[in-house]
Amino acid sequence: MAVAAQLYGEIEDFYARHMRLVDQGRVDEWGDTFTVDATISNNANPRPAHGREAIVSVIRRASAELESRGVQHRHWMGMLVVDPVDEKSVRVSSYALLMAVAQGTAPAIDRSTFCEDLLVRVDEDWQIHERRVQHDALG
Amino acid sequence: MAVAAQLYGEIEDFYARHMRLVDQGRVDEWGDTFTVDATISNNANPRPAHGREAIVSVIRRASAELESRGVQHRHWMGMLVVDPVDEKSVRVSSYALLMAVAQGTAPAIDRSTFCEDLLVRVDEDWQIHERRVQHDALG
Amino acid sequence: MAVAAQLYGEIEDFYARHMRLVDQGRVDEWGDTFTVDATISNNANPRPAHGREAIVSVIRRASAELESRGVQHRHWMGMLVVDPVDEKSVRVSSYALLMAVAQGTAPAIDRSTFCEDLLVRVDEDWQIHERRVQHDALG
Repeated sequence: MAVAAQLYGEIEDFYARHMRLVDQGRVDEWGDTFTVDATISNNANPRPAHGREAIVSVIRRASAELESRGVQHRHWMGMLVVDPVDEKSVRVSSYALLMAVAQGTAPAIDRSTFCEDLLVRVDEDWQIHERRVQHDALG
Repeated sequence: MAVAAQLYGEIEDFYARHMRLVDQGRVDEWGDTFTVDATISNNANPRPAHGREAIVSVIRRASAELESRGVQHRHWMGMLVVDPVDEKSVRVSSYALLMAVAQGTAPAIDRSTFCEDLLVRVDEDWQIHERRVQHDALG
Repeated sequence: MAVAAQLYGEIEDFYARHMRLVDQGRVDEWGDTFTVDATISNNANPRPAHGREAIVSVIRRASAELESRGVQHRHWMGMLVVDPVDEKSVRVSSYALLMAVAQGTAPAIDRSTFCEDLLVRVDEDWQIHERRVQHDALG
């Protein structure tokens, strides 16, 4: 069954703003795109991160390290499947690429993943409540 | 002239579900996203495939071979131009990439194509009735 | 705040048609997706191009050169953030990739950029009035 079409653009816009923030090193604002009690898990790390604080602290270190090396990250999400759960929540699965661009070099695709999110409505916008990431290179 | 905007998200969602199925090796369900009498042609093969059965049988072999090698395919479609024909059919042209991820390696872009589909409404969803693919590396 | 959802698909469709034209070497039609007094600037070139004529003439030479080498360009735009300014204009920022496919080779990603456009309504469609491009590899 087809997704409510007006929702689709709204979710694409949310993800664009979400990834833009982390790619620009605006880590605290990026953290605000998660609920305070959000969780992230993936198949590369047996221990999921619990809570916005924990999620942000991991990324803050990674972001500082990237900046010191002059590498620009570009996260591309696409091929979204949007499944409304109820009026206040939606499941979205997508493909996500991590592209890295070092100064004076051609872009490199570092990683391909499959991403499953549970988004919840907060005021007029969305937040990520639960994220599960599968790194394709880890099977 | 601009596409009916509500249609655009619906078509993006259709392609995401369509490609997800083949990338997950769910070949029979993928076949159901084509009409029974669908055709596929491309500039790499002079003989087009006629009918869902023929289309699926080619992909079933390719999918089994990929799985045996532990390679994850990710088909990305994007840059869609959506042209409604009538209430029950729409022409969609797009760019499509085939990305392949072998275990423990960086993703590789194997193929870039230009894809022209005729989609038809079936119940509340869409099916591909005719697909023409142009492989960019073949000119 | 979330974008007006119906606008999002319309903008995606505009960019797909816009980039399709330049990738197909239809340079004059591509020029018509800019206003007559449009400007383009980027961080690779200190001198911005002023006016559709200037913009098109640069691309006409590049396009002829590509064709003579048998290279197919594919511009992918994605991760769009759409911010309406008023009823007749909208700011759109996006990620854009330039992919190049030479005959008989695998696709190469030549360039990753961040693109900021001011689009204006013209009749039922959009035109680019101002474009600023940041090449990621130039910092």
